[in-house]
Amino acid sequence: MNIKNKKLFILLKEIFIKHKLNSQHAEISAKALINAEIVGAYGHGLSRLKMYCDRIKKKVINPNPKIKIKKISQSISHIDADNSIGFVAADIAIKKAIENAKKTGIGLVAVKNSGHYGLSGYYAEQAVKKNLITMIYTNAPPAIAPHGASKSLFGTNPICFGTPTNSKVPFIFDSSISMINRGKIRFASKNNQKLPVGVALDKFGKSTTDANKALKGVQLPIAGFRGSGLAWMVDILSGVLTGGNHSGRVKDPFEDFTGPQNIGHLFITFKTNLFVKDYNKRIKDNIKRVKRLPKVKGIKEIMYPGQNKYKRYKMNFKKEIKISKIIKKELEILKY
Amino acid sequence: MNIKNKKLFILLKEIFIKHKLNSQHAEISAKALINAEIVGAYGHGLSRLKMYCDRIKKKVINPNPKIKIKKISQSISHIDADNSIGFVAADIAIKKAIENAKKTGIGLVAVKNSGHYGLSGYYAEQAVKKNLITMIYTNAPPAIAPHGASKSLFGTNPICFGTPTNSKVPFIFDSSISMINRGKIRFASKNNQKLPVGVALDKFGKSTTDANKALKGVQLPIAGFRGSGLAWMVDILSGVLTGGNHSGRVKDPFEDFTGPQNIGHLFITFKTNLFVKDYNKRIKDNIKRVKRLPKVKGIKEIMYPGQNKYKRYKMNFKKEIKISKIIKKELEILKY
Repeated sequence: MNIKNKKLFILLKEIFIKHKLNSQHAEISAKALINAEIVGAYGHGLSRLKMYCDRIKKKVINPNPKIKIKKISQSISHIDADNSIGFVAADIAIKKAIENAKKTGIGLVAVKNSGHYGLSGYYAEQAVKKNLITMIYTNAPPAIAPHGASKSLFGTNPICFGTPTNSKVPFIFDSSISMINRGKIRFASKNNQKLPVGVALDKFGKSTTDANKALKGVQLPIAGFRGSGLAWMVDILSGVLTGGNHSGRVKDPFEDFTGPQNIGHLFITFKTNLFVKDYNKRIKDNIKRVKRLPKVKGIKEIMYPGQNKYKRYKMNFKKEIKISKIIKKELEILKY
Repeated sequence: MNIKNKKLFILLKEIFIKHKLNSQHAEISAKALINAEIVGAYGHGLSRLKMYCDRIKKKVINPNPKIKIKKISQSISHIDADNSIGFVAADIAIKKAIENAKKTGIGLVAVKNSGHYGLSGYYAEQAVKKNLITMIYTNAPPAIAPHGASKSLFGTNPICFGTPTNSKVPFIFDSSISMINRGKIRFASKNNQKLPVGVALDKFGKSTTDANKALKGVQLPIAGFRGSGLAWMVDILSGVLTGGNHSGRVKDPFEDFTGPQNIGHLFITFKTNLFVKDYNKRIKDNIKRVKRLPKVKGIKEIMYPGQNKYKRYKMNFKKEIKISKIIKKELEILKY
């Protein structure tokens, strides 16, 4: 942690502890929020703090969960997160998935009764640092209409894939299946910003650039039925399979306090050297060959997924995180 | 096999045997081609037969491969297909992946030195019939330009996911990462059909609806950098990881006879009941809830991936496969 953000970290940790999280869980959660800010994923950062605290207060996040890890096999584990804050459930799950893969070559860890955990890529990075390939799926509240439907049901349901690259910059593909992240719409709404054209419809099915109207309407999936199919796949893998909520039952964490989210996650991890001895050389060669292709006009470098995020991380790491007036006010209130 | 297509099946088998495939391999290959025709995936059907035969003749497909299956663990296997015809390699691999998952809950099977195997969904169906969830990735010759590049490198790199549905119609998502399948462009080229607008560029980077120009140009990925990232992920999973070719080295089977393709595939399988006892009930409920959403105008039923294909299969199964004049001519020549 950079010294300039140490103060913020301590403040966030205190706020979580004040809301009855234990010290370790408060630290995990504070770190995840700060990481989101540093990589520029503001929709997963401080703008969510109040929501987490509200959910704890209203007893739909359990600050003192009895998390159960059930061993299915040496490779496979099932975690019942007892409605912990999502960060903690995901942190335990990725560590278990890493442990299982290190032991047997492959790890498969399913989580149920969890909540929103922020960025999938944040957990993927942990596995990649341990020299593993990882695939991560999570459920989310309704935001996208299935192909052919006029009402939202699937979440933005991110697909995440990470691999070591034989360099310090990991390959982390972490993309929602919607044209735009819900967090970005929420951030735009909170900061009175317009949305790009063509990413969302209002509740009457009309195209809108108004973030507030988009939140009440429908987000558009990428690539029509293909994006819809991918979102459905994620709903099945992270919801139906794990014991988590699915098919539109995950509650919106900002708006629905009638119960816990019961989000499900699925973590797959495996060793890079299961089938080839020279994976590091091969992935390096792969990236080099893509990078040296002729570029379209205006492009200086072909970037692999995760590279831009890493650049932002390096650039912002030593800077003090900027906090908007609205968030400052929220922090002040949450502190006392 | 329906009696009306039995004759065609026998003819295809004979053609493959004439090209030195053994009886079993010839049957596997003939069945895969006929299945592609029945489900309406013509780009993966008879239009490829001559290519396979040409490749065998030119010794870049090995008609008499010594396929090695290496056991990495109870769950994990590595197959060196010795440049067999892709159908055979994939058939052995999915059966191994099923066996491993039945034994340990999860199967991971990588294949190297393989070739084009047709439809991923065809193999996914085998796993789903055995009540397993499956994810399948395969490499393909350059067709899509990475985001920012002006030259093709990634294949159309399909992503395939299958699950049982507690009904006879499996959920099989099987989608390439391009706006249109390369097989469809090839089929359009062979039959003098136009392409839709916006799916491909010619070799000068201009939008085209001419299938021949598109084959020499670049196919467009779905959803810009997201589609490009997914294609890259598939290249890594099926190529870098498995020991197969990657980063644009997979040869075009129709145009490049200078060596075998050395395509890689990756098959992941797992049991549906690892984490929940009532998966069948849950998936049924999931599909029901999506299907009963309000529909956009003109849509009668919200379909899940694989449903349309199953309908086509049922509809066409008892019909005689229609063979175009060009293909008829090819069959005549290949027979003698």
